[in-house]
Order: sequence, then structure tokens, then C-alpha cells
Amino acid sequence: MNLDAREESKDISRELSSEARTDLLARYQHVRLETENLADPLTAEDMQLQSMADASPTKWHLAHTSWFFEVFILRPHFVDFRIFDSSYPTLFNSYYNSLGSAHSRPQRGFLSRPSIDQIFAYRDAVDQQIQQLIEKPSFNEHIASLILLGINHEQQHQELLLMDIKHALSLNPLMPCYLQEPVREEKNSAVTSMNWLSVGAGNYALGSDGEQFCFDNEQPPHQQFVADFKVASRTVCNSEYLEFIRDGGYREPRHWLSDGWDWVKCNQVSAPMYWRHREGVWWQFTLAGLQQLNPADPVFHLSFYEADAYARWAQKRLPTEFEWEIAACLHRTSDAFVSANMLEKGNYQPYAEITDKPQFIGSVWEWTGSAYLPYPGYRANADAIGEYNGKFMCNQMVLRGGSCITPLSHIRISYRNFFYPHQSWQFSGIRLAED
Amino acid sequence: MNLDAREESKDISRELSSEARTDLLARYQHVRLETENLADPLTAEDMQLQSMADASPTKWHLAHTSWFFEVFILRPHFVDFRIFDSSYPTLFNSYYNSLGSAHSRPQRGFLSRPSIDQIFAYRDAVDQQIQQLIEKPSFNEHIASLILLGINHEQQHQELLLMDIKHALSLNPLMPCYLQEPVREEKNSAVTSMNWLSVGAGNYALGSDGEQFCFDNEQPPHQQFVADFKVASRTVCNSEYLEFIRDGGYREPRHWLSDGWDWVKCNQVSAPMYWRHREGVWWQFTLAGLQQLNPADPVFHLSFYEADAYARWAQKRLPTEFEWEIAACLHRTSDAFVSANMLEKGNYQPYAEITDKPQFIGSVWEWTGSAYLPYPGYRANADAIGEYNGKFMCNQMVLRGGSCITPLSHIRISYRNFFYPHQSWQFSGIRLAED
Amino acid sequence: MNLDAREESKDISRELSSEARTDLLARYQHVRLETENLADPLTAEDMQLQSMADASPTKWHLAHTSWFFEVFILRPHFVDFRIFDSSYPTLFNSYYNSLGSAHSRPQRGFLSRPSIDQIFAYRDAVDQQIQQLIEKPSFNEHIASLILLGINHEQQHQELLLMDIKHALSLNPLMPCYLQEPVREEKNSAVTSMNWLSVGAGNYALGSDGEQFCFDNEQPPHQQFVADFKVASRTVCNSEYLEFIRDGGYREPRHWLSDGWDWVKCNQVSAPMYWRHREGVWWQFTLAGLQQLNPADPVFHLSFYEADAYARWAQKRLPTEFEWEIAACLHRTSDAFVSANMLEKGNYQPYAEITDKPQFIGSVWEWTGSAYLPYPGYRANADAIGEYNGKFMCNQMVLRGGSCITPLSHIRISYRNFFYPHQSWQFSGIRLAED
Amino acid sequence: MNLDAREESKDISRELSSEARTDLLARYQHVRLETENLADPLTAEDMQLQSMADASPTKWHLAHTSWFFEVFILRPHFVDFRIFDSSYPTLFNSYYNSLGSAHSRPQRGFLSRPSIDQIFAYRDAVDQQIQQLIEKPSFNEHIASLILLGINHEQQHQELLLMDIKHALSLNPLMPCYLQEPVREEKNSAVTSMNWLSVGAGNYALGSDGEQFCFDNEQPPHQQFVADFKVASRTVCNSEYLEFIRDGGYREPRHWLSDGWDWVKCNQVSAPMYWRHREGVWWQFTLAGLQQLNPADPVFHLSFYEADAYARWAQKRLPTEFEWEIAACLHRTSDAFVSANMLEKGNYQPYAEITDKPQFIGSVWEWTGSAYLPYPGYRANADAIGEYNGKFMCNQMVLRGGSCITPLSHIRISYRNFFYPHQSWQFSGIRLAED
Repeated sequence: MNLDAREESKDISRELSSEARTDLLARYQHVRLETENLADPLTAEDMQLQSMADASPTKWHLAHTSWFFEVFILRPHFVDFRIFDSSYPTLFNSYYNSLGSAHSRPQRGFLSRPSIDQIFAYRDAVDQQIQQLIEKPSFNEHIASLILLGINHEQQHQELLLMDIKHALSLNPLMPCYLQEPVREEKNSAVTSMNWLSVGAGNYALGSDGEQFCFDNEQPPHQQFVADFKVASRTVCNSEYLEFIRDGGYREPRHWLSDGWDWVKCNQVSAPMYWRHREGVWWQFTLAGLQQLNPADPVFHLSFYEADAYARWAQKRLPTEFEWEIAACLHRTSDAFVSANMLEKGNYQPYAEITDKPQFIGSVWEWTGSAYLPYPGYRANADAIGEYNGKFMCNQMVLRGGSCITPLSHIRISYRNFFYPHQSWQFSGIRLAED
Repeated sequence: MNLDAREESKDISRELSSEARTDLLARYQHVRLETENLADPLTAEDMQLQSMADASPTKWHLAHTSWFFEVFILRPHFVDFRIFDSSYPTLFNSYYNSLGSAHSRPQRGFLSRPSIDQIFAYRDAVDQQIQQLIEKPSFNEHIASLILLGINHEQQHQELLLMDIKHALSLNPLMPCYLQEPVREEKNSAVTSMNWLSVGAGNYALGSDGEQFCFDNEQPPHQQFVADFKVASRTVCNSEYLEFIRDGGYREPRHWLSDGWDWVKCNQVSAPMYWRHREGVWWQFTLAGLQQLNPADPVFHLSFYEADAYARWAQKRLPTEFEWEIAACLHRTSDAFVSANMLEKGNYQPYAEITDKPQFIGSVWEWTGSAYLPYPGYRANADAIGEYNGKFMCNQMVLRGGSCITPLSHIRISYRNFFYPHQSWQFSGIRLAED
Repeated sequence: MNLDAREESKDISRELSSEARTDLLARYQHVRLETENLADPLTAEDMQLQSMADASPTKWHLAHTSWFFEVFILRPHFVDFRIFDSSYPTLFNSYYNSLGSAHSRPQRGFLSRPSIDQIFAYRDAVDQQIQQLIEKPSFNEHIASLILLGINHEQQHQELLLMDIKHALSLNPLMPCYLQEPVREEKNSAVTSMNWLSVGAGNYALGSDGEQFCFDNEQPPHQQFVADFKVASRTVCNSEYLEFIRDGGYREPRHWLSDGWDWVKCNQVSAPMYWRHREGVWWQFTLAGLQQLNPADPVFHLSFYEADAYARWAQKRLPTEFEWEIAACLHRTSDAFVSANMLEKGNYQPYAEITDKPQFIGSVWEWTGSAYLPYPGYRANADAIGEYNGKFMCNQMVLRGGSCITPLSHIRISYRNFFYPHQSWQFSGIRLAED
Repeated sequence: MNLDAREESKDISRELSSEARTDLLARYQHVRLETENLADPLTAEDMQLQSMADASPTKWHLAHTSWFFEVFILRPHFVDFRIFDSSYPTLFNSYYNSLGSAHSRPQRGFLSRPSIDQIFAYRDAVDQQIQQLIEKPSFNEHIASLILLGINHEQQHQELLLMDIKHALSLNPLMPCYLQEPVREEKNSAVTSMNWLSVGAGNYALGSDGEQFCFDNEQPPHQQFVADFKVASRTVCNSEYLEFIRDGGYREPRHWLSDGWDWVKCNQVSAPMYWRHREGVWWQFTLAGLQQLNPADPVFHLSFYEADAYARWAQKRLPTEFEWEIAACLHRTSDAFVSANMLEKGNYQPYAEITDKPQFIGSVWEWTGSAYLPYPGYRANADAIGEYNGKFMCNQMVLRGGSCITPLSHIRISYRNFFYPHQSWQFSGIRLAED
């Protein structure tokens, strides 16, 4: 987050106006409530599930997001701070080594205690103290910026919560529904044409200037030379991906990176993560249960290896994150964000859009061909907050654009998401590019 | 179980007397209720926990014991049988390959659905049908013997339920208590002397004659020549085991079997499973939480490798299962079972006894030096029930005598329990022997 | 070995007669030469191979057998002892923890130095010192018994050498031959009938009385009650095992022990270890390269799991080691050993015998249903020699009878070999039994 | 390699002049001989060693480099081609899926056959045919370019051969020497000052223009904007790295990338790969055996994680590969290559230079902060040669500059080497940079 950047240009100890406080509190309360709403369809047993080391139980997400406000904001900045439970700083630490030890990640699913009721009580206690803190006369810009960070952090966990529970439910042979019914009854089954958007070579300004909130990995703003390129107007759809499968895509090593081919063989991968083939028909497991595959909908839950192999098979390539950012800026429409298929729409599933306007925001995260590395001049915070992003800048690839389970107010064109090339439980798809 | 044996000598299609039916139903209902009582201190989240592949969630135990009655008794023998849920025969099959596929064992903890409420409803439905079956005029000896098997099966799972939840809770840094308070406030801290019971050489009759219920692995009765031997009057206690530790027992390969030494090094074992050393004091995790180690209490939660290494260090050996059975018969007192520290006592923890009478029953399972193999002439049932015991007769060692979490009505002198040599989450201790 | 036993009854410090010395030296030299002859067909590169952790390079066998004489005999008992190389006591220690550290077992194949020439020089140096030791006036019964142990130890490694190089060569796609041509050109393709030998119940004396050399695990002699049983007159042949395969033996869990079924699935086993199916024909890799399977020859290279599954499928069982020993004694013919297919015959492959006389010795090791455990009253030596056998008495099963690569002078009816149930690179087959 | 690039601008079917043929043949013969010279100090047993899956036996390198000429040049382009052995195309294929199956990589060390003599005969046979091919009238530019690629390929394997045999010998407790004596008796123990070279921001041309030989991954030439930066005049030395260790560098997570910290803990890393601490003194295993650490010499055999952690601890960073290339061009001296410590110098070990001129070439490979990704516009060849580089462009980091075991004629400023972040058996060190 751009704490440092803003601190340089502003008086961070300046007290906030009453109006700004009201706004901040409202935003805080809205996000906190939204997280609890996401947990609403789940039982105490569901919220206990941890189906792999990469994922966390819903209960843990509910607690950890509160922990973040407690240890980064209340403990250092709230004079009347009272710890809720002395074991929580360790239990709900994710990966901040500077803050002491953390409960073993793969064992988060073994924490049947504290109970879910205690976790909700924890959330309430933190919320009350945050409210009191905001109302303190001494409440200032610096603390406000930390709360903003905590809000954005919680929004990231809203997406993780849905990714993780989807994975956990998928391992139950009963294939339970998170959503009782799919939101959209009528589906668009016609595949719209894929157009190619051209961008001319030149030096471009990239990254966030820090005027609005951003994470530290989007900074500093910097320039980058980019050659002529084209990107597709939409992401790849299921029927297109099926052609790749039918053409033997998963059996032909020449389409794959060497590590990708090892991954395919070792895991015997032959289709996207949640696809199931039954009696000649393709289905996919969704948050609304098993659904028949709609050919026109975006393909998603792809690993980087799959996205890259598809692009090579299609004689295209993935865009770099710079190309993506430039194209998304150039083709940004006035309603790009409002109309986007994001968390608030309640679909929790990407759908084919009938428009042929280029759409870069929402629906599915888009793998880029860029490794997740620091921008030139990047410097992480010296304190524990510095572990937020910087220490992950190795072995991962950048994804851009947000998905149908990303909150609308959380996404930006400069936003950099990142996953390991083999991971696919995130809502990730493919946009093609070419020289 | 001795179904076959008894079927030969009785008319198994004979209808049961009204009195016998009443007795059987009462016993059935008692055991079923007791299982639910054991789950009583647990939350829905606790009952979801699976902390290792060897263990199962409480919820799964509650369901699987009902599944046993459903698939082995109701489905084939109850004309009005109605399946509770068509997915359950797969979900709650443990390892009976003849009955079709089973849900993956290490993924039992991912079954947040069906909910615990549904599992209790399942239990009720099975209970009602079993009651109706028993009341049918056609209810006969054969079906009664199957119900008796189901009852004994459920008792085994009562012990497993406690072993498994203890293991799961032990991984929670909060070290939650299953029992709100330890039953025995006053502990006996004086170590009673270990006496040596002599038995003369000869041919002995071993195994069960099938007069009372037994499992098939206790049969057929057969004779065995045994040379002169002595066994200790009690099991090894904590203070004795501490001497072994202090003497460098875990660092000295010559005490250990080769596989045992590999196990010690690979797992960096330096004390029994639930022991914790804090500021010079030894504690152990119990079902009543962390408790200070009482020197006089029996040492338990030992692997076979530890039991064997201790015996070698002490210049003794473990008894064979034959020696154990002979000695337990010879030294059986009139109140051996009534006074034994078993499940019904509610301790759930072994305690030093003040008596110096030899005690073979209850307290802790006792590792023997015998591999778990079929008795001469053993033959497993041809149908699915045949998978109950026989297919495990390899790579495991026999334990005898029952423990403080074994139901009293479940144990017999001829009872053969079995675990892999590296396992220690069962309540297992050491009785020494010598030539 | 029966060092202790004999020490009790003899004056072990008695000096040996000149004749006894000559005999011992001749036997020593014969065995030492034979080991080198076995290495003769191999290149320096072949002798370097270690294809799995269970196996060792030929070079290592050549060195380790010399190490045994050096550390157990020369170092403590030869006053003029000079160490050949101070690094060898660690490099060539197999598993004797009492003798200090040992080079990591799975890294034996990384020892390109010392070179094979140095190892042969090491052998010569040891041989010279052993000869000098035997000629010393003070040379006594005790040291002679140790040399006898060393000779038997080296014979065990002769068999291991062949097992290990067979495994290593089998991983080379060129399928190189150890033997340039198979010894027997004409094969007996007619399957002889399998007769059943009956033995009556009673108490039998088992184990070795120590009159001739034996290992400590064959002692003490003891009695055992055995019920009526029958054993087959010959081991199972390839055509019989093929019926098991064709009947779906490897796909049907009910034939298998639970651990065996896991082994089949996990390793995708569908035929014996060295069998290859090519265009409808079965071949097997032998020390003379790939050979077509002869239906009448004994099936071998089976794991215990396969032997046990075959027996269950055939509605028989494996004999216990006691049954095997009793039957082998009762049916011992005058030429049982002389005519046996053992190492000296030079076949290195089991063949169908035309005789219908029961044959228990040679050809293939026979899995028994007995776990490898100490005999009643067994006590291992207190010093390093005590690690020879005793510490392996867990998790392994007993095999009896010797194989076509066991030296004739090495085998005895009381001889107990042992392997883990999943292992099959030894020359192991099946003899059936029934009640 | 720039086959395509050159093919566009030249008539690749043009026949070569007699002079050009003579030069090419001389260069070919020189490199082939040099490879064999590198194998000269090794025994047949040494050449058999494969100490990890990442490494290959010397024998395999000798064969595979010949295979490359056979399958890419002789088979398609030499009319009189005769295959040496029909099994070799599979045995010595490294990773070219388009060319059919390859012998399993981790099993290369099991190929005791073909013998080393046969491999040398294979080399001769290939050499003779290459010579005949070059002398054919039809020999043209295209084939010449493929031979040039084969020569460069073989030079890469010269470096790998030394890396791999060093690793293999390091696992032998005897710590054998590859070089009988270290070349440099006198060492420079004074640490020269580390100066900082400044470079101004701007758009720079990067990559190879293809005028001289290069690999395809150095192309196409392209421009890149780079901000102001500084790089150090020399790489980090042992005494500087020791400070990091003494300051607890390996125990402090905040210096490490998250994956790096996992690597440290999981492998219990506490010093560079070949360092050994004995009685207060630091040694390192070298190709000339165990040598005392010279404080002024460059530290090497570092993983990317270690290089990155050191840089963070030193409050610097690693240069990007673009920064490295720009600085190396700007500070290139007339004798930069001639004076560099590279393979031909015969040191096989980096040494402190007394000069304070910036030196970018030789000594140690330098980790950059750049992920190994395709340059903009990169396109791999369509045929099997296309697998040479492109399929590895994921999960690896770029190293620059060559090392003391890289052939002088093989290195270029645009040369991109690449390894996984955890690997350290290559001769890799650290050059620092800052904004």
C-alpha cells in the first residue's frame, strides 16, 4: 500500500475532518458486514473446512481480517486497547514473521476452538474499538490510511473466502451448493467475435501515482518502453478451450512449458480444475453446484501453464502486465467498472457478455506473461507491514483485472494480483495477445 | 466374530424368545446412547475434525456405526427397509471393498455436509428400524448375532472416537479440554512394587471357544506350547520410563529395533507422544487438558518401538500374546473386570492402583511381542463381513487387555487388538516379561 | 550365529589343530575367490551401480565383506594388524551402530573412489592377514568361529550381489546380460503335478541345535505344537500364476491383504517384478537377459503380498515357518542338497524339475506366513555382532529353503531368511499349504 | 540460437568457402578435444556418477553432446549417415520431446552400458562423419550454423560436466580431488574496495543483433527504458558474506523472500553449498579438494534466495539483467575477455583480482533480479531445435557474465544463463546494485 508515498506529500499527523471520519467508518462497517454476509450460507461445520494448505477455513478468514485491525491499528494506536484473547495474535497471524510466531498454516483447519460464535464476538469487539478509535480527537491521517489498508486487506480475503470454500465443497461427493440457486437463469450461448485492439510502440507511464489507494506493489509509477502489440477484446471462452482439448492439447508436449508439461503428467491433468465429463457432456462445479458448461462463457480456473499452453496452441501469446495495463487504460469506457461482473453483482460466476465493447475489468482474472517482480525503485515498508507484498516477489506470475468475486471498490487498472504458475483455484482465465 | 462357529452348532434360523429380544434391544439402545453421550462435550466444529489419515471425525464415527447396521443388517434382513440417504453407503463405508466404493479416508474431514443434525437423524432412523426388525416375528438367531456384532463394532468406535478427538485437540495450541475437569482429584503418587508372576512350561489352550461373543480373529481355539516364563504384576509407570529417557534411551541405537531407530531419527522422537517438557517439569496432554505427569501412573501412548526399546533397556522383553493370555487367565481375580479402570469409570486416563494384586484388564493396552497373524485354522467369512479383521493380519503387532477408554462389556481375555509398530495415539503401555 | 551356544559347551580358547586350520583356510579362500568370480563378468562401471536404497554396488559388497573380517576379527584378534585405509571402517560399515558411524546407505553408489582396483588390493591385504592369523600358534576356537561367521556373511553377500546387479541391469533399456548365455538350453515345459504331503499334529523340535554352524536367529532349539497340515510337493509355476493374473488377480481386492492392496494400487503392480508383456507374449528379465517365460518354471520375484494373494485366490494358504521346517525334515532325501538348483550349478535361474520327489531346498526362497520374530529364549550377543540379526525382528516375513543363487554350503533346513512384505528383488516364490 | 534471424538476411543454402570450412572444422575439433580433456582426470567409475536428478554423469555428457550432432546434423543432412547404435537416440536424448522418447533423467546414472570405451568410439564415429560432411561440396551456411550451435551446446556441457562432477565428488567422504593441485599457489588475501558505477536513465538497446553467434533467447534486439542506477565494480567476497552469516543472516526471516525462507528452514541451510566449518575454521570443497576459505575471493555457489537475502541485508539489491548488460557494455575494457578468469585459465575456481577495474566477465555467474522470460518478439524455432531454450522460460532467474569454468569463446555480454532460485551447484555469486 502507498503509505510511504502519501506520507511524504501529506501531513500524516493531521486530524481527520468529521465528514471524513463518517465516510471512513461507513466504509469500514460496510466491508465488515459484507464479509459476514458471505459467511451467511455456511454452517459452523462448513466454516471449519481447510481442504488444502493453500486455502484457509472461512472461520480463519473471519478472524484473521479482525486480527489485522487489532495488531496493526488498535494495539499500536488505540490508547484504550484491550486484547480480546491473548492467544489470537499467534493463532490468526498469517505470515508476518516480524510479529512473532504464527499457527502452522496447514493446521488452520484443526482450530475447532475458538468456536465460530467466539470469532463473531471477536469481530464485534474489534469493530467497537475501531469505531471508538475513529471518534477519538487524535485520530489522524496516518491511522486512517492504515484502516484503509485493513479494509482492502479484508476485501482480498472476501475473494479468498469464496475461492477456498468453493474448493472445499468441491471435494464433497454431495457437491453442495454455496448459492442455493444460480443467479442468472438465462444464459447467452452465442460466442461473440474476438476483435484485436492495436497499440503503438512507445514509452508509457505505468503503475499507480498514489492519488487513490493502492498497494505498495503498484508503486512507484515509472515508465516502460513497449513495442507495437495487439490484445484480444475479450477472454477465451469454453468452446474455444474445448477445441484445444479436442485437438489433444493436454497430450502434446510441444504446447507446454517444460515445467507445465511436468505438472500435466504428474497430476494427470486433462481439463480445467472443476470440469467434469459425464456421459459425453461437460459440467463444471460452481458455487451454485454442478452446472452444465455453457460454450460461450469465459473459461476459468486455469493455471498459468494451461493459459500459456492454450496461447501457444492458438499461435498467440499472453500479454505482459504492461501491455495489459496500457490497453486497459486506452480502452477504458465510462461504465467499465459499473457494468463489470464483480462481487456485488452476486453472480459469483463469469458469464458471456453480449456487448462487443472491450471489457478488461471483472469476470475473470487474466494471466499475464509477466513474472511478479518489484517495480523499479520499489521499496517495502521497514516494519511488519512491509511483509504484505514484497516477500512474495519470486516464482509467481501477475494476473490483472479482477474477477466476478472481487469487490468492485477493490479493483484498479494498476492492480497486480499474483499466483504460482501451477495454481488454479483462483478465478483465472486467458486474454490473448500478439506482436 | 464367531458367526460361523455358532452357526454350526445352533439352529440360526430359530426365532428369538421375547425375553432375548428385550435384552438385545436394551443392550443395543444402551450402546447407541453411550456413543452419543461421548459426543456430548463436543461442538459441531469439534466433531468435524480429522487430524491425520489414521483418525476420523467424531461425526464420521457417529455415521459409520449406523451405516454398519444399515448395510449389514437392515438392507439384507429388514423387509420394510428404507434407505435414509442414497449417498451414505459410499460416504460412510470404511474399508469394505466388497460393498463398493468408499469415500477417501484422508478426506473424511472434508464432509461438512451432511450436517451433524442430519447424522443424528440418521442414527434415529436406523434405531427405529432396528427396533422394528427385532420385533418382527421372523427375527432370528442369525440376525441377532449380526446385531451383536454391530454392537461390538460400535464399542470399538467409542474407543476410536476418544483416541481421535484427543489427537485432534492436542494439535490446537489452546489445548482444549474434552472433559471439563479430571475425575480424580487425588492421585496416588507412590509407585507400587513390580512383582514377577511365574508360569510353568506346557501346552495351553488359547483363543476363544465361542461360548460368549468374540471376533473371528480370536478363533479357532487351539493349543500352543509355551516355555517357562515370568510376567510383571503391573505395567511400567512414568517414573520408570523417565529413567529410560534420562539414561539417554532415545539417543542410544542399541536399545532399538532397526526400524524403530529409523522412526526415532526420522520423527525426532524424544518422549512419549503427548508429553511436554516445560521449564524442567513434565506435563502430558490428556482428555482433561494439560496435566502434570504423575510418576506413579502407567506410562502410555507408546509405540511398539518404544515399548520394545524400553524392555531391552530394562534387560527384559515383552510377553508374547500367548504368555499374556495364559498369565491373565491364571491370575484372574473375581473382581478383575468390575474393578478395572475402563470407559464406564469415566476417568479416560490410566491411574496408579494402590493394590498389589496383578491386574491385566483395563488401564492401558499392553503391547505384546507377537505379530498379528491368523490363528491356526482361521478362516474369514466369505462375504463382506470377512473383511472385518482378516485382511489386516500383516505388519501389525498384538495388544491385549483393554484400556481406560475401552467399554467394560467389550473386553475379554482372549481379545486381540492390533496396531502398526509406529502408532501411538492408542492408549498403549508396557508389561514386561522374562524367560 | 551360534557363537554363544558353542562357547558354553566348548573351551573356546583351545587352539586349533593344524588340520582344522588348513580346512578353515581352504574354505575361507574358496569363498573369497568365489565372490570375486561373481564379479568377473562386470565392468568397473557395472560394479559402481546402486539402483535403489535396498541394493548396494558390487564394489561395495566386495569391500564390505572384507571390512567384516577386518573389524570383527583382525582388528581385535590379530596382533600384527595394520589398517588398510583409515576411512574404510566408516565407508564400508553397513549398519553396525556400535562400531561408529556408517556412510549413508543410499549414497553407496556415489563412492567412485576408492577405485575397484583399490578394493581388490584391500581384499588381498585382508586375505594375507587372515592367513597369517590362522597360522599364529595362539589362533583358537573362538577366532575360528568368528571366521566361520565371516565366511557365512560373505556367502549372504554373494546372493545379494547377484540380486542387486540383476536389479541394476534391469533398469538399463539395453537389458544387458550378466551371463553371456543361459546355462540350460533345453527347458522342461511340462508342468509336473502338485502333490500334497500330510503331516500329523504334535509337538515338534524346531530350530538348530548348534552342532553345525548356524545364525543366532535359528536358536535356541525349542518345541512348538503344530496341528495337522498339508504342504505342496513343489512351488507354484508360471502357468499357474498366469491363471491368477488372467482371472483378474491384480484387480480384485478380496484376494489381498489390506496393505497388499494399497501396494498394488500405489505401485500399479500387474505382474511379477521382472515380467514384461510384449505383443501377446510374456518375457522375463533374467541374469542372462530377456527370456521368454517358460510355463513350467517356478514363478519368482514375488512380494509376500503377491504370494499371500495367490494362495488366497487358490483357496490355500502359505505354510508357517514351523510347518515348512517340519515338512522339509520329514521329506528330506539323501540327495536333497546335492541335486538342488543352487549357486554352484551356475544356472542363476530356477527351472522346472522333472522329478516328482518333494524338493524343499534351492530353486526359489519360499515365503512363509510367519513374521520374523525371535525364537523363545533368543538372546542377541551383547557386542556389535549382536546387531547381525536381532534388530531386524520386526515388520518382516520369514522365507525358507534357499534359491538358485544361494551357495550350497550356506543353506540349512533351519535357515531363516527375511524380507519386508513388499520386497521382491530376492528370488522368492510360493509353496502352498492347507489345514 | 539465431538460426532464423540469420536465415532471413542470408542465403543459407550458399556453399561455404574452403577457408570457412577449415576454420569451422578446426573449431569443432578443438571443442570436441577439450571436452575429452576435461574427462581426462576421471576414472570410468567417476564418469558413471549421477549424484542428483539435476546433474548428469560425465559419460552421459560425452555421449549427449555427440548425440546432438548426430540427430540434428548428421541424420538430416549427411547423405552417407550411418547410425552408430540404434538405442542411442533414446538413451542420450536430454529433453527434446519432438524427437521421441528419452531415457528417464534421474536414471542416467544407471547406464553402466554402453561402456565409456564405447562412448569414446561413438564420439570418434560422429567426428569422422562431421568431417566428411564439412568436406562435401554441398555443405552450406545452414548446416554450418547448426554445427556452430552444436559447438556452443557442447561448451555448455563442458561447464555442466565440471559442475556435476564437483557435486558428485563432494558427496564422497574422501573428498577426492578432480585437479591434483590447485593452480594458484599464492592467493590475494586483500579485499579490494567495492566502487559504484553510475548509469543514467534512458532507452537502451539490448539483446544480440545476431552479427555473431548467439542463442535464440538473446534475440530479438529490442529497446528498454531503464532508470538511473548504480552497480558495484566487483562481486561480493567471502569475508563480506561471512559478516552476513555472523550477523545471523540465515536465522532472520526479514532478509528473505518467503519462498527463500521456506527453503532455508526446509533444508536447514546455514552457509553456502560447499562450505564446511571445522574447529572454528571455514573451508570449502573445490575441484582441487577441501581448501581453506580465502576471505578476499568471490563468494559463490549461492542460490538466488541467498543472493537476494544478502543484498537485502546489505540494503542494496540485485541488478536487473538489463542494468547488468548496460553496465557491462559501458565498462567493457579492451582486455575484458582476455584477462577474465575463465575455463581456459585452468583455475576452475574464482579468485580475488588485484585490479580495481570493473570486471563483468568470468569468475562467477551473477544472479540478476530478472525472471527468465522471452524478449519482446521472441519466437522459438518451429522444429525440435525450438525446444532448446524457449520451454524453460518460467520459474527461473537470469544469471550473467560467465564463470571460471565457462569457455572464453562461449561467453558474450548478451548471454543469458538461467537457473531455478533454489539451485546452487552452478558457480554463482552476487553483484550488488542500487537505485
